Amino acid sequence: MNKFNGMKKEELQDLLADLNKRYDEFVSQRLKLDMSRGKPGADQLDLSMKMLDYPSGSDCCKTADGTDCRNYGLVDGIPEAKALFAEMLEVSPKEIIIGGNSSLSMMYDSIARAVMFGVYGGSNPWGRQPAVKFLCPSPGYDRHFAICQLFNIEMITIDMKPDGPDMDMIENLVSKDEAIKGIWCTPKYSNPDGITYSDDVVMRFANMKTRADDFRIFWDNAYAVHHLTDKPDRLLNIMRACKDAGNPDRVYVFSSTSKITFPGAGIAVMAASENNTALIKKQLGIKTIGPDKINQLRHVAFLKDMKGIESQMKKHAEILKPKFDMVLDILESELGGKSIAWWNKPNGGYFISFNTLPGCAREVVAMASNAGVAMTPAGATYPYGRDPQDRNIRIAPTMPPVSELKKAMELLCVCVQIVSIKRILTL
Amino acid sequence: MNKFNGMKKEELQDLLADLNKRYDEFVSQRLKLDMSRGKPGADQLDLSMKMLDYPSGSDCCKTADGTDCRNYGLVDGIPEAKALFAEMLEVSPKEIIIGGNSSLSMMYDSIARAVMFGVYGGSNPWGRQPAVKFLCPSPGYDRHFAICQLFNIEMITIDMKPDGPDMDMIENLVSKDEAIKGIWCTPKYSNPDGITYSDDVVMRFANMKTRADDFRIFWDNAYAVHHLTDKPDRLLNIMRACKDAGNPDRVYVFSSTSKITFPGAGIAVMAASENNTALIKKQLGIKTIGPDKINQLRHVAFLKDMKGIESQMKKHAEILKPKFDMVLDILESELGGKSIAWWNKPNGGYFISFNTLPGCAREVVAMASNAGVAMTPAGATYPYGRDPQDRNIRIAPTMPPVSELKKAMELLCVCVQIVSIKRILTL
Repeated sequence: MNKFNGMKKEELQDLLADLNKRYDEFVSQRLKLDMSRGKPGADQLDLSMKMLDYPSGSDCCKTADGTDCRNYGLVDGIPEAKALFAEMLEVSPKEIIIGGNSSLSMMYDSIARAVMFGVYGGSNPWGRQPAVKFLCPSPGYDRHFAICQLFNIEMITIDMKPDGPDMDMIENLVSKDEAIKGIWCTPKYSNPDGITYSDDVVMRFANMKTRADDFRIFWDNAYAVHHLTDKPDRLLNIMRACKDAGNPDRVYVFSSTSKITFPGAGIAVMAASENNTALIKKQLGIKTIGPDKINQLRHVAFLKDMKGIESQMKKHAEILKPKFDMVLDILESELGGKSIAWWNKPNGGYFISFNTLPGCAREVVAMASNAGVAMTPAGATYPYGRDPQDRNIRIAPTMPPVSELKKAMELLCVCVQIVSIKRILTL
Repeated sequence: MNKFNGMKKEELQDLLADLNKRYDEFVSQRLKLDMSRGKPGADQLDLSMKMLDYPSGSDCCKTADGTDCRNYGLVDGIPEAKALFAEMLEVSPKEIIIGGNSSLSMMYDSIARAVMFGVYGGSNPWGRQPAVKFLCPSPGYDRHFAICQLFNIEMITIDMKPDGPDMDMIENLVSKDEAIKGIWCTPKYSNPDGITYSDDVVMRFANMKTRADDFRIFWDNAYAVHHLTDKPDRLLNIMRACKDAGNPDRVYVFSSTSKITFPGAGIAVMAASENNTALIKKQLGIKTIGPDKINQLRHVAFLKDMKGIESQMKKHAEILKPKFDMVLDILESELGGKSIAWWNKPNGGYFISFNTLPGCAREVVAMASNAGVAMTPAGATYPYGRDPQDRNIRIAPTMPPVSELKKAMELLCVCVQIVSIKRILTL
């Protein structure tokens, strides 16, 4: 270990005194900044205001095939919306189900249906089996884990590697344990690591042998088109890979326009094999006569096609890139080379995953909070809120304005150094 | 029995020949009319087109308290929408949860949560108990019954009386059987009978002793403001009655704007005690970060307040009243006094409940279908699709234009007479 470039005890104590002074200055500013959630900023939301002008014109509420979207019907969505999201997710419109405003709801409902009624090809509802376990690549998305907790599904933490989850561990576990029914993945610009799974990882997911014949990959492609650079990551098409591998029914893909248009009035979507969607649509038909179809029309009129989505996402990137750059610059200038913290440099998504020395994350987040900067709770990125090494902090730079972001990041870096020095000095 | 005014066998045979001729004429017209579902007509949907202009203006997407509706948040709805629907349902805004587009989804989800996690005050999830039964006043709403069937909840048919369900039967059953966990009610302008429960019925619901301590009334107040006349029915406030009776947590109230604005882009709402809503909101927070809030803004801007809702409903009634009147006129002129059919004359709602001689409904619906007029399947208004007397037909007069409606009703009356005469002649 060569923390802080090998500074001696006395030097560290001097530095600590300086840092404490800086911290007190932050405290005296009575900040009230929120870096806790992956919310778009108001300027991003302004990008979609034109969408609210749609639908307009005579017969504006009809689909191309003449269905009146104002009335009941079309439980799986209007043809135009299915076509648009089929293009975005690289699947057939027959493999698409359009939902309401929330892809989280579609995931929750998919778990709930599996627990209560079982999945296509499964012999029993998950809820009738002695135990149900899910694999949770971590750090991951806290809301995925919360669903498992609510349904009493045991979570098994899987390490994240630079190209995706630890596939050796996953293949080994799923091949042996019939109780393992699924896995949560955010395969592109992952939450929070910003990692895009490699082709090899996707192929191994598609081809692995699972002991459970009703195993499902919950492929939360939330950041499918959410690039920050002109050279976006590429994610292999898992639906095609699963088909080619003879496991066509293995995967549920989820996405939404929450961070394309509006989180508070977007469109959620899922994709799955035709066997899967047929069963889901049948069950869904008991639950609803159909989702909001006028909002689907509105989205199609505004986004138009894949080119329209890409152009919209470029505008988001123009707003977000300077924020991510500033965070990375501050991290580099304050913490670079000190061997007390490590972070990812994502090409897209909504987060920067930040790791302290082991055993420091909770204290860092608490210090930041005491100075008025809310971070995602330490541990939240792990099942049951328990980060075994207490080192991961999810930085969400999208929501605050650049000036506030700068201040919040400087504070964070001060906190990290203070907690790290204290830790080093007591070792 | 004095069917057909006591006509003799030969007279009936002559009449039958005439009716068969009339039927054949209908068949030759190759009709394609749909009277199967309670859908509003296009002219009704036109009444809400102005709503699509909202929200508009600067800061148009903010709630009164400054929340940006375009972003994440507010799992139970925006304050303005809660206030509006609290007024409509005569409850406190704290007792309101706003949903997505479908009240059916809110009912389904309420059943699902009860089955998986249990209800407030219940000691166990319904799904962990040996059996779950629901009372189903019938004729009733087929989609309620379909939810029970999907969840394997045993349905017990309860007779409908002129002032609501048979309360003697209900009180007797719920006092004895712990497995009876709930009941489906459409208490105002009931589906399909058009009956509004009397004050006495509502009070008995609120005060009855239930063996199950986790019993819930599913009070689907779908037609709360859907009057056809200037002298609307009044429904006692069951939330207040349950509070007064010391059973505040007994009832879940559901409603929506599906037939106020758009079935395909409306707002669903539920009301329940604060204990109930607190638990539901907690569970709901795992499923979604929030429903479509811009559509809530749109509704509030368009409907404004209770007066706005009432004025909107008057416009609906102006369109619907002539359709209901025509149906009733044709029924009276074709079948009146013949003692072969009976029907209700509702003051609101979407249906006319029609009863044939026992054992005739299925055949009548089949004959109408063969002549190109789709009716709700006979039996659909009973649990498991089995009308024990095979006599109830749900007439949904709202969707077809008046001219088509006339033709469809005339055909229906011909079919009813043909099937009745055949039945009488073979007795």
